[in-house]
Amino acid sequence: MTTDAQILSALRAAENSGVSGAELSLKLGISRAAIWARIEELRKLGYEIEASPHLGYRLTNDPDVLHADDLVARLGKTQIIGRDIRVFQETTSTNDVVEKLARDGVKEGVVVFAESQTRGRGRLGRKWISPAGKGLWFSILLRPELRPQEATQLTVAAATALWRAIHAETGLHAEIKWPNDILFRGKKVAGILTEMNAELDRVKYLILGVGVDVNQAANEFPPEVRKLATSLRAELGRPLLRAELATAILRELDRDYARVCGGHFAELADEWEERCTTIGQPVTISIGERQIRGHAESLDDDGALLVRTEHGHLERIIGGDVTVEK
Amino acid sequence: MTTDAQILSALRAAENSGVSGAELSLKLGISRAAIWARIEELRKLGYEIEASPHLGYRLTNDPDVLHADDLVARLGKTQIIGRDIRVFQETTSTNDVVEKLARDGVKEGVVVFAESQTRGRGRLGRKWISPAGKGLWFSILLRPELRPQEATQLTVAAATALWRAIHAETGLHAEIKWPNDILFRGKKVAGILTEMNAELDRVKYLILGVGVDVNQAANEFPPEVRKLATSLRAELGRPLLRAELATAILRELDRDYARVCGGHFAELADEWEERCTTIGQPVTISIGERQIRGHAESLDDDGALLVRTEHGHLERIIGGDVTVEK
Repeated sequence: MTTDAQILSALRAAENSGVSGAELSLKLGISRAAIWARIEELRKLGYEIEASPHLGYRLTNDPDVLHADDLVARLGKTQIIGRDIRVFQETTSTNDVVEKLARDGVKEGVVVFAESQTRGRGRLGRKWISPAGKGLWFSILLRPELRPQEATQLTVAAATALWRAIHAETGLHAEIKWPNDILFRGKKVAGILTEMNAELDRVKYLILGVGVDVNQAANEFPPEVRKLATSLRAELGRPLLRAELATAILRELDRDYARVCGGHFAELADEWEERCTTIGQPVTISIGERQIRGHAESLDDDGALLVRTEHGHLERIIGGDVTVEK
Repeated sequence: MTTDAQILSALRAAENSGVSGAELSLKLGISRAAIWARIEELRKLGYEIEASPHLGYRLTNDPDVLHADDLVARLGKTQIIGRDIRVFQETTSTNDVVEKLARDGVKEGVVVFAESQTRGRGRLGRKWISPAGKGLWFSILLRPELRPQEATQLTVAAATALWRAIHAETGLHAEIKWPNDILFRGKKVAGILTEMNAELDRVKYLILGVGVDVNQAANEFPPEVRKLATSLRAELGRPLLRAELATAILRELDRDYARVCGGHFAELADEWEERCTTIGQPVTISIGERQIRGHAESLDDDGALLVRTEHGHLERIIGGDVTVEK
């Protein structure tokens, strides 16, 4: 952990009782003057840190910013995901940044956040609107030992992890729509874009891109998407501290990634099916110009959707647009 | 076409009767002095071009070099593949070069050759030995509208095209081993490495890497691969002009790519099955640590190998190492 991360971690652990410059100096092995300089820098980032002769330093308010050191401090120890976290003020797309890291041989688990994306992407080349400070736009580099057609497992795992983190932080029960959307009453609040680099029979690396609409007010969405999109703030009636939600998601993802790699996808699939509003419903799936109508039955071992078609046979769906018919 | 390509093309069309500087000047719209300067440059590359007052310029001998202009001139008009050809003296791997082009948005069909590769790759991260001037090491950028699991179709198409080009240039009947090897009596002479960048349900771009051992003498192979590898020269008893073979391969590939994109993979699959020594044989397939034994029955619609296992059910194989049991 960096000095900033250690300071924030110590301030949070001390809560209201505060921690003295002398204690911090001892703990971190740097001078009290150096501690003071770092505290000043953190204040500039928006952290409200009070200093009093009796209580020492106290963290009285967190800004809603993404700060790599703070995210690391909040996340604590994970197995793979988030051991290396990087935050950009603005990028084209965090998936692009992670792709560059992947090609440079960076280890799996690195997470790249951006406060805003100028060219955020959704599935099938669609645009993902990513305004500064309003949501979580991040991407994770993974190097799983999977075949390309097993990669859907990770999208399913990510959806399950997102569901759990959102539930833990807000108490809200979202719906999962196969394969990669989190919804409230049919309106999208989060999505996952999985991109991979592969040989025919082996994934070389895979990038999980996650977008969560967190703090937009309902009227901040462009008019054309207002009927299709919502934010956690709009659902909950209050804003959320994004760093807290972000680390909750990473912690859940780290756990689920270990489950997939350990061959325990079936457990995840069960959990996923419970949360999923697609399973058990009549659906129409559009794949390019082709349309398949049928009944969504379950997930298969690779995370594909099994659909019983009108003609009675079971079709294995790995992509396309799913519409639940009401 | 560049000036060099036009000159080589005119010289080849004229054959032994030659073409005068005046004719070339008229045809290309540049001065006779400029023609003469280009001829000098071509001579430096190894092209033997005689100049006589009566016959004009005559191409009397081709060097066995890869020269982008010459490859373009030889190839003539194609639909997609080879409209843009680039030759490097040395690269790490031509797949790496094409991947950079892909990310820069270069159009599909570009072909990158290297006289030698310092880090030529085979499937599953294996090394492909690529000595200078001895073989064809090249990669092609494609942007097909396919799902990742359909990408095997292009490996099958490439194997068929390679088989046909080798047959046309040498008269030899090679064997195809599923999915991507061309063999003579069990020894590998050429291979294909397919790498792709994809979302779960759509290929964004795909790179076909091709390696053909052309002009190595049998004893030029490292001792450890001598039992496993051969070259066209070793099989044929004489060296080949690589540029001629290269353009024959590109022409066939261009035709087969159009067939796959036009939805005519089934035709290709039939041709492939005829040439393939894997179909109809007892096989063992190693996928990581798992082994499947069975009887190779046919290709499915996506180019996967259908294997009837010992236990009687049909398994769909998209990767792994196939060994034909004799």
